Amino acid sequence: MTPLQLTPDGRLRHLLTLDGLPEPILQQIFSLADSFLEVSERAVKKVPLLRGKSVFNIFFENSTRTRTTFEIAAARLSADVVNLNIATSSTAKGESLLDTIDNLCAMMADMFVIRHAASGAPVRIAQHLAERGLDHVRVLNAGDGRHAHPTQGLLDMYTIRHYKKEFTRLTVAVVGDVLHSRVARSEIAALTTLGVPEVRVAGPKTLLPKALGELGVQVTHDLDEALDGVDVIMMLRLQNERMHGSFIATTAEYHECWGLTPERLKRAKPDAIVMHPGPMNRGVEIASSVADGPQAVILPQVTFGIAIRMAVFTLLAGVAPGGLA
Amino acid sequence: MTPLQLTPDGRLRHLLTLDGLPEPILQQIFSLADSFLEVSERAVKKVPLLRGKSVFNIFFENSTRTRTTFEIAAARLSADVVNLNIATSSTAKGESLLDTIDNLCAMMADMFVIRHAASGAPVRIAQHLAERGLDHVRVLNAGDGRHAHPTQGLLDMYTIRHYKKEFTRLTVAVVGDVLHSRVARSEIAALTTLGVPEVRVAGPKTLLPKALGELGVQVTHDLDEALDGVDVIMMLRLQNERMHGSFIATTAEYHECWGLTPERLKRAKPDAIVMHPGPMNRGVEIASSVADGPQAVILPQVTFGIAIRMAVFTLLAGVAPGGLA
Amino acid sequence: MTPLQLTPDGRLRHLLTLDGLPEPILQQIFSLADSFLEVSERAVKKVPLLRGKSVFNIFFENSTRTRTTFEIAAARLSADVVNLNIATSSTAKGESLLDTIDNLCAMMADMFVIRHAASGAPVRIAQHLAERGLDHVRVLNAGDGRHAHPTQGLLDMYTIRHYKKEFTRLTVAVVGDVLHSRVARSEIAALTTLGVPEVRVAGPKTLLPKALGELGVQVTHDLDEALDGVDVIMMLRLQNERMHGSFIATTAEYHECWGLTPERLKRAKPDAIVMHPGPMNRGVEIASSVADGPQAVILPQVTFGIAIRMAVFTLLAGVAPGGLA
Repeated sequence: MTPLQLTPDGRLRHLLTLDGLPEPILQQIFSLADSFLEVSERAVKKVPLLRGKSVFNIFFENSTRTRTTFEIAAARLSADVVNLNIATSSTAKGESLLDTIDNLCAMMADMFVIRHAASGAPVRIAQHLAERGLDHVRVLNAGDGRHAHPTQGLLDMYTIRHYKKEFTRLTVAVVGDVLHSRVARSEIAALTTLGVPEVRVAGPKTLLPKALGELGVQVTHDLDEALDGVDVIMMLRLQNERMHGSFIATTAEYHECWGLTPERLKRAKPDAIVMHPGPMNRGVEIASSVADGPQAVILPQVTFGIAIRMAVFTLLAGVAPGGLA
Repeated sequence: MTPLQLTPDGRLRHLLTLDGLPEPILQQIFSLADSFLEVSERAVKKVPLLRGKSVFNIFFENSTRTRTTFEIAAARLSADVVNLNIATSSTAKGESLLDTIDNLCAMMADMFVIRHAASGAPVRIAQHLAERGLDHVRVLNAGDGRHAHPTQGLLDMYTIRHYKKEFTRLTVAVVGDVLHSRVARSEIAALTTLGVPEVRVAGPKTLLPKALGELGVQVTHDLDEALDGVDVIMMLRLQNERMHGSFIATTAEYHECWGLTPERLKRAKPDAIVMHPGPMNRGVEIASSVADGPQAVILPQVTFGIAIRMAVFTLLAGVAPGGLA
Repeated sequence: MTPLQLTPDGRLRHLLTLDGLPEPILQQIFSLADSFLEVSERAVKKVPLLRGKSVFNIFFENSTRTRTTFEIAAARLSADVVNLNIATSSTAKGESLLDTIDNLCAMMADMFVIRHAASGAPVRIAQHLAERGLDHVRVLNAGDGRHAHPTQGLLDMYTIRHYKKEFTRLTVAVVGDVLHSRVARSEIAALTTLGVPEVRVAGPKTLLPKALGELGVQVTHDLDEALDGVDVIMMLRLQNERMHGSFIATTAEYHECWGLTPERLKRAKPDAIVMHPGPMNRGVEIASSVADGPQAVILPQVTFGIAIRMAVFTLLAGVAPGGLA
């Protein structure tokens, strides 16, 4: 938890991490998302809450899918959205990250959505804004290195809340490539905050970080054991593109040991839900028949993700509707 | 003709191909385009018909020009438009085409504009939407492989209608690289539907597909013969970028035999119009003096193209104005 | 000065260069910018002056930063903005620059913002529009080769006006890589028009053009001499990316001789302001402590740049508010 993300009176200023974010703020975001879920079902999917605000999607790491979710959420709130793919552009002229941020602030930016390959980049930006006295400019972490992906964690919790109603009697399994996964870190933090009594983390030894035990989760290297009687299965994407060493033998072998198949799924409770942050590697970490099966809630996760991002945008901008914010 | 593109009561659901599309629907699109032509001439070129609708321009094949026409048409209808260049992005993470589509549907997409190098990709997407029960999401084919480019065919017909008033007494020549041309396929289908009595298709033997005769057109390998007394000349772009074999000797030689020059143009009727889908290879399939001459209607084709795309958007979205849709 | 950029009755039609642009037009732009500066400080940073207008940002040279300033300025005026990165797209299909322009005009473009590596490209486009009788379509030069960058020159003058109130008693130093700088050309032209009595241009011999004397400026190859008692220091970016020959030995050596350090800055007047067009090479042409110091007005330049671009957009579009245009 960074102190930067809350104002002195305890409201959300930036969304940088779910680690240490108080439960009332999570619940506030969920309540807001409830109302925005309805907006996306209207014939005219648009409300004017962010009209005349300038939102910058700054992606130092390419991700069309994630950028699209933020772009759509901001557009449905009537914001002006500018996409910057920095990976291939201004840094080529040698400008530093913080000079880029300063420049966009001078253009009267209201909000930065930041995706960066380096853990901590959004926190560094938030610190810089504080040092510069630019407290009205907000930072939304859209995924930084192996550190955090808080909107993904929030939409995952919102999905669980939708299907399971409450958190305090659940057993949840987080399965796969935890080592490279900022998603897993955000999920574990939020599950803990929301009072989930049993979180099991499962993956091959090469793909689990060493300090997992400190997080209060149960660690196992056996998938069947991890799935036994669980309510929720959160599969992780095999991050092929982040693997520079030889963490796994082959994807076929990975599927053999760690892929979620219909047979393995039977070990979970009959009404267990199956989640995945996408994009899926079908036939690797998840069998197609499970991904498309009746227990999968992978597409509802995406739908909820738009509502969650709309909720976070309005909360950060101080324009959340009703008496909520 | 795919049954997918019409609803059971005969209205346009998707625009996938002009092959088999009934004449009343073509006429309905033309009438709508008449009204939208006027919108683009206003000081404020904007109507709220698609406000709050989410249109995704998904280009698996790069085409700034075509993407721009759809982007402008959607913006003038007040839609929220998101551009996705998939060629270079999400597929890099190994997600399948249909998973991408499912995800965007979960974001409450209203319409997909699809450009794809593979023939049949938009049809496959429409089938998938039907299987998933997502009948309210619409597909607009912006060019697939060598198969179809229906909005180009429609704007070409609209151009002929504008200059020649009716179709049933015309002689039309389609000239050039028919083999690689989805435009030619869409043009020939629509000319047939609209009752053009004589369609001549001309090109070098290496650039004409073998099954042309079945389409009810006259085939010739002599340009002068093809142009003799025609009302409309539809030149095709030499698709250099699609030619992997040695279909032609040199572009100079191609111009010599198949380029539309002022001399050759004299063989057509004095009031014949010259069309080209763009982008032109000046000095290859068309002489500059013809492209810029008084008989060329190449730029009006572009203007009409915006109106046609606005018409198709509103028709698919079920928001066409007046008593038309 | 090109006659193209003014209408017969002396109003601004295109913004191509500041060379020869009359002082009353500069003052008109400054007055308009005053009013737009306030718009960017509102909670709802948006006015409907360009609603329903189609603005095309055509960047033949990649520049995320400059494109963003125009995109934000147009969005705050409610225009429909389409970005085209032509460098990597349609020219690949062999279409000429003027064919691209003709096509976008046929789509009913209202304004082109042009960035091009070739000096004179925007002028050529303006000539072409005149030849085609398309006088209502406007061209805004966003930087062409080594020729001009007029909006940068305008925002620089607006910055000086803001801090120094008037121009006719100032001494201004322009320092650095003048040879490759379109910014310097635009600055010198505007400083002259606005009656600055003493403009000093300083840089290493290899980075100063030969014909500088003809512009009525003082030329020096000694930085200390150039800074002595000046009111305004306009640093130029070392255009590493434009240097194909060996103009300088090393960037460290450049900093030693030509970098603006705190020590050197003491030679200027105590209230002298330090400007830079960005992006900065910290530690090369400017020391970080100067860039972040109390005399630097580099970020205000960016803020003023949005207001200046909004002013130019409305003036060109003939929709400038009040009795000003």
